[in-house]
Amino acid sequence: MLRRIPLFAVPTLLIVLCVSSAQVQPQKQPVTDPLPSWNDGPAKRAIVDFVRVTTDKASPKYVEPAERIATFDNDGTLLVEQPLYTQLVFAFERVRILAGEKPEIKNKEPFKTIIASSPEAMPNLPRKDLEDILGVTHAGMTVEQFRTIVKDWFATAKHPRFKRPYPECIYQPMLEVMRYLRANGFKTYMVTGGGQEFVRVFSDKSYGIPPEQIVGTAVKLKYQYRDGKPAMMRLAQLLMIDDEEGKPEDIETFIRRKPLAAFGNSDGDRQMLEWTQSGPGARLMMLVHHDDAVREYAYGAKSKIGTFSDSLMAEAKKQGWSVISMKDDWKQIFPFE
Amino acid sequence: MLRRIPLFAVPTLLIVLCVSSAQVQPQKQPVTDPLPSWNDGPAKRAIVDFVRVTTDKASPKYVEPAERIATFDNDGTLLVEQPLYTQLVFAFERVRILAGEKPEIKNKEPFKTIIASSPEAMPNLPRKDLEDILGVTHAGMTVEQFRTIVKDWFATAKHPRFKRPYPECIYQPMLEVMRYLRANGFKTYMVTGGGQEFVRVFSDKSYGIPPEQIVGTAVKLKYQYRDGKPAMMRLAQLLMIDDEEGKPEDIETFIRRKPLAAFGNSDGDRQMLEWTQSGPGARLMMLVHHDDAVREYAYGAKSKIGTFSDSLMAEAKKQGWSVISMKDDWKQIFPFE
Repeated sequence: MLRRIPLFAVPTLLIVLCVSSAQVQPQKQPVTDPLPSWNDGPAKRAIVDFVRVTTDKASPKYVEPAERIATFDNDGTLLVEQPLYTQLVFAFERVRILAGEKPEIKNKEPFKTIIASSPEAMPNLPRKDLEDILGVTHAGMTVEQFRTIVKDWFATAKHPRFKRPYPECIYQPMLEVMRYLRANGFKTYMVTGGGQEFVRVFSDKSYGIPPEQIVGTAVKLKYQYRDGKPAMMRLAQLLMIDDEEGKPEDIETFIRRKPLAAFGNSDGDRQMLEWTQSGPGARLMMLVHHDDAVREYAYGAKSKIGTFSDSLMAEAKKQGWSVISMKDDWKQIFPFE
Repeated sequence: MLRRIPLFAVPTLLIVLCVSSAQVQPQKQPVTDPLPSWNDGPAKRAIVDFVRVTTDKASPKYVEPAERIATFDNDGTLLVEQPLYTQLVFAFERVRILAGEKPEIKNKEPFKTIIASSPEAMPNLPRKDLEDILGVTHAGMTVEQFRTIVKDWFATAKHPRFKRPYPECIYQPMLEVMRYLRANGFKTYMVTGGGQEFVRVFSDKSYGIPPEQIVGTAVKLKYQYRDGKPAMMRLAQLLMIDDEEGKPEDIETFIRRKPLAAFGNSDGDRQMLEWTQSGPGARLMMLVHHDDAVREYAYGAKSKIGTFSDSLMAEAKKQGWSVISMKDDWKQIFPFE
């Protein structure tokens, strides 16, 4: 039985044994399931097996703790992304607020279209327009000012279907995976196509991922002086786009170590999973598949948000990546259930 | 006496007390000096006082461990930078080797000048020429290929004066500061104007700083496929220049937390120290001053390498930054002494 006690429980057990040795009885301890929201199945087994072979010193695939890196996409992998990416909901709402404050943008495209659209709809905007919107809503202010605006928005904004603040619309099974990995010496990083600073506002509280472990799309910053004091300005220029090829590129720039495990849910995560798999030894590549219209959403190849194309599904099968079925693999979706 | 035992010694003490309680005698334990290579003086006192007030829970300036970030410049702060930055020695030697392999660069400027210069001299090259040199010696190859070239070079290259491999020409007192900070829950980051990937090759072994805690000047990367396999190419374009304003900008992008302590030695570090000081509570800003021509080098305002201008010295005085005199504050300079 002892072999089945998860590794992360060992320090606790030692403390218990040491501190209150008089109370210890030679009885069987219940084995705690580190992934209680997961149904038994191939996805859960893949995670548990991966952790075992990479952390058991007797395993030929053992990996030193310093090399234990796991990367997670955010939208659709940790957080609900339907009916619209949280950050775009934020950006479009900011456009509406700013239109009231600065009438000059009210009648100008692409802002005019945004203001006329329903709050949850993603207007069919070309990339240039999206950049204009990001420029107005995410730049031209200090990092502290931006942080305050995002925090204030999160304090009241609610998901249209789940009626909860966005940072609560996160997947309980993925929280368990991150905790399980961390308890086994892994460093969990987020690698998101979303804005690095936007996510950093809630990542620590929601996911237990500190800001320095959030890699994401980032604007250029400009250090300058205001009234003789240092100020860090956000410019309306992109430094890095952390999607598709950008994910492994930014992993290399920020972390340098190749991840041992990577979790995604869409075509934008393909390169991160390929890069992860290209290293030696045990590797874990997983894709969350949104196939549960009852408890969350069902979407895939045809969705503009979080596209999971047929070719990604074909690659997953060919490469042996695990596809997580929300419907079949997850007992519970959200922490608030 | 118990109050004088450094905090980092407490876990060890507890283990000793617990494991071999029968052997413990009620005698005075020697207090271990965490900074034995430092002479008693204002610089050493500034470090010890800073650690005490930020880590003692009873202190009004106590800081949670997650926020304990310390940043270190590399060249001239941790590593000898005279007579020429290590990375430029490497780059110029690579030019000479490549000129043998690719005769087309042999008669082309700026390579011709490099080949004709003495190995230790810094030719007076404009920035454009330096970028051309970096393009030829640091790009157009995969990250793994570059890493191998740097490793191989470090295996044989020696500092012209100290006759030791470059990664050994590091300052013992600064190693002690980093260890002391880490033992007190600080995360030590390097923030270097030098090449991020160049330094990552030796940072873990030389300084105990893992690659993901090295922020530096970085080239753009390009994820692509070679024979169907993922390959990460280094491009001859700069993504970030991590010097002067670039230091606080990159600290914000990579770490996001404002450092509590920052260590530099030249004009390129001024903005990092200003940014550090702009936060609330206890902050530690230190500049290594190279004033020891006997044991290392003496240089300052007039040096092209590691310029410590009069205006930086004036700012240090005005702002209350600590200036470390190598001559007076350091008992020992190198680990190999």
